[in-house]
Amino acid sequence: MHPGRMIVCDGGNGAGKTTVLKAMETHLVARGRDPIMTREPGGTPIGEKIRQVLLSPDTPEMCDVAELLLFAAARAQHLREKILPALAAGRVVVSDRFDSATVSFQHYARGLPLALIEQINAIAIDGFKPDLTIILDIDPVLGLERLGRRGDGLDRMEQENLDFQCRARRGYLEQARRDPERFVVIDASRTLEQVVTAALAALDRALAR
Amino acid sequence: MHPGRMIVCDGGNGAGKTTVLKAMETHLVARGRDPIMTREPGGTPIGEKIRQVLLSPDTPEMCDVAELLLFAAARAQHLREKILPALAAGRVVVSDRFDSATVSFQHYARGLPLALIEQINAIAIDGFKPDLTIILDIDPVLGLERLGRRGDGLDRMEQENLDFQCRARRGYLEQARRDPERFVVIDASRTLEQVVTAALAALDRALAR
Repeated sequence: MHPGRMIVCDGGNGAGKTTVLKAMETHLVARGRDPIMTREPGGTPIGEKIRQVLLSPDTPEMCDVAELLLFAAARAQHLREKILPALAAGRVVVSDRFDSATVSFQHYARGLPLALIEQINAIAIDGFKPDLTIILDIDPVLGLERLGRRGDGLDRMEQENLDFQCRARRGYLEQARRDPERFVVIDASRTLEQVVTAALAALDRALAR
Repeated sequence: MHPGRMIVCDGGNGAGKTTVLKAMETHLVARGRDPIMTREPGGTPIGEKIRQVLLSPDTPEMCDVAELLLFAAARAQHLREKILPALAAGRVVVSDRFDSATVSFQHYARGLPLALIEQINAIAIDGFKPDLTIILDIDPVLGLERLGRRGDGLDRMEQENLDFQCRARRGYLEQARRDPERFVVIDASRTLEQVVTAALAALDRALAR
């Protein structure tokens, strides 16, 4: 058991993760917790290079197994280089996505076997679990509409169709149902203020544990 | 069983792979076989991007598990996008390195468990085996001396020390000893002409099978 806290914010595309993460950072800083804000895929120089390979919209030919292995490679580096040392030093680490996204996108949405995903996650993170995973739950129709409003181009994962995003959503809800100790689901169709308030409350509960 | 042939040329750094591969290509073209020459990591646009991440000398912090997963990701894409379709069409595919390199470098040299390597190779290539793997066997002292003469910079793997290269060499020899049907070891300390002659003879035997 490490003295720090690992908090993950995850959920469908367009659910408001960016805003919630910014609010969490401000909230933690105000409480003197000096958080490490990070993201997946990415979070390290090697991970960010892998992110470019993964999310580039110009490689639609990427096969599902290569995608899974790339996410896992970025995660393996992220955990060992950045997350574990920070937790050992008592820091709060807040990550935009983590292992829950792989289960949702690569198993529920892409259809790779769950046993394979769990085998790869076990290799990449070797039994490590976040203390809290906040899922921002959003109807993909609304999520895609919000993404459209964002203005910049969509990455390779965001370009997947509505059915794909619906299967990923079901994956998040299933994971949360199976592990209510670690997961909190927040209805992200509400106002951004309500969503942020709920996320900060979940964060405070995890820090107080 | 596919109608094509998958031939791998592998071995320690500085063993003369580049020259042997060029001779194999010329030999196959002269026999009207129109080979597909490829390499690992790489061989596809996605694989070549992964290669840049893997071999860049500016990321010495890469952890062993991330390295293993990146090689596997490149191989998964290589097999599905390029190798299997080519073999199904009856083509001869010649690859500069393949799964044997992962066993040598990530297990024997880096020390990752063999069971883990085999699990990852199974996921990446799903039981596929090359028809022939030619190992160019070289004393790493001589190999490193030849690399030094090459003139350009050394990549992240080539920069590893002599002990690392010696363990990798033992890995190649062990694999060849365990699977003499698929592996041919060529003494690469001989003249380049002798090495090329031996490699072409092994290639011809594999094509005639």
